[in-house]
Amino acid sequence: VSASVNPDNFIINAVNSVEELQKSINALSKRLREWYSLYLPEADKRINDNEAFVNLVIKKDKHALLREFTVDESAGAELREQDLRPVLSLAKLIHALAQEKQQLEEYLEKTMQEHCPNMLTLTGALIGAKLVRGAGSLKKMALMRSSTIQLLGAEKALFRHIRTGARPPKYGYLMQHVMVQGAKKQDKGKVARALADKIFLAVRVDYFRGEFIGTKLLKELKDKIK
Amino acid sequence: VSASVNPDNFIINAVNSVEELQKSINALSKRLREWYSLYLPEADKRINDNEAFVNLVIKKDKHALLREFTVDESAGAELREQDLRPVLSLAKLIHALAQEKQQLEEYLEKTMQEHCPNMLTLTGALIGAKLVRGAGSLKKMALMRSSTIQLLGAEKALFRHIRTGARPPKYGYLMQHVMVQGAKKQDKGKVARALADKIFLAVRVDYFRGEFIGTKLLKELKDKIK
Repeated sequence: VSASVNPDNFIINAVNSVEELQKSINALSKRLREWYSLYLPEADKRINDNEAFVNLVIKKDKHALLREFTVDESAGAELREQDLRPVLSLAKLIHALAQEKQQLEEYLEKTMQEHCPNMLTLTGALIGAKLVRGAGSLKKMALMRSSTIQLLGAEKALFRHIRTGARPPKYGYLMQHVMVQGAKKQDKGKVARALADKIFLAVRVDYFRGEFIGTKLLKELKDKIK
Repeated sequence: VSASVNPDNFIINAVNSVEELQKSINALSKRLREWYSLYLPEADKRINDNEAFVNLVIKKDKHALLREFTVDESAGAELREQDLRPVLSLAKLIHALAQEKQQLEEYLEKTMQEHCPNMLTLTGALIGAKLVRGAGSLKKMALMRSSTIQLLGAEKALFRHIRTGARPPKYGYLMQHVMVQGAKKQDKGKVARALADKIFLAVRVDYFRGEFIGTKLLKELKDKIK
């Protein structure tokens, strides 16, 4: 009676966990920053990126960091070893969370390489996985129109549009795509639409196990939005 | 120009991190349960406790678990090793989070043993730390009335009471105390008040570095609410 498990399930579970790990990393990094600021408040102000912050805390001591910041004396306090240890331990844990997240992203990429290589080439692993999750499955996504794919992840804005007449959304998860991000504001909608058109084709080929046309589609897309 | 760091700061940062770790453990456990259920859905239904779930996933394989559940065949699917590995890796990470949380609780206990042993004896580390955080510092707490201590952590309910005339709260963080938990519904308010009276005394002794009277206070409290 074993249920058949579709790779879609792996993709959806993996991307859910990646997102949850990111949330935990953010929340715990905030705590780490507050705590470490008792000791060396200069670090929090200078280092915005959480991963960079965690790495510095783990790898460099106060003196090395002060030299790096070209500050003579910290406004923070000296801590006893026993009071510093739990802070460093928290930093190491956050580092482990970041590593786990990276490994999961690699797994996601590998799984999608097997299951939907054409879409992967266009979207990358994270956005592609979110699209599959939004659609419910690769099969359902292969039956969607391009305009529906374009709005996956924008369900809230779409319903707000229908209910209140607010402006309709132009993209959902595709907003995070590097090409949409890189487009001028007035072009973002157009780029998202061109991208969705190619994803539409890619997903059908993936679902019906056709040949690999990902690179060709990507090139056509790049030519179009040039 | 080093700022003086009060042990209050260690206590507040440690308890904040403990709470954040617990949130992460809960959220990631939910993801783990969903994911592992592709493989062995019987486990999620039978094991409610997250820590127990994580430990089983790490330590026992499918056959051992099915024997333990006295189930002949799982409704889940067989997974390839490469698809099972990330699930087990997530479980190990959650286990590491739980260990970190435990270590932090031990640090919290040790710090409070130095800083406020009398309160610690009455409240335990977690509730005591939340009270200090709610008050802002041990000093501020030492200047509070017993009735204010009783309502630390119930600020929302208190303002609702003032604004709307809803029933006033009887306790805040003290609600989580084993004695309040163990009291009959109609006695909980009384127990919380008796507990707050003793905490009031304990905190003043702690703040002014008086002798250890925690055990005596605890005994008096137990006699009173018997």
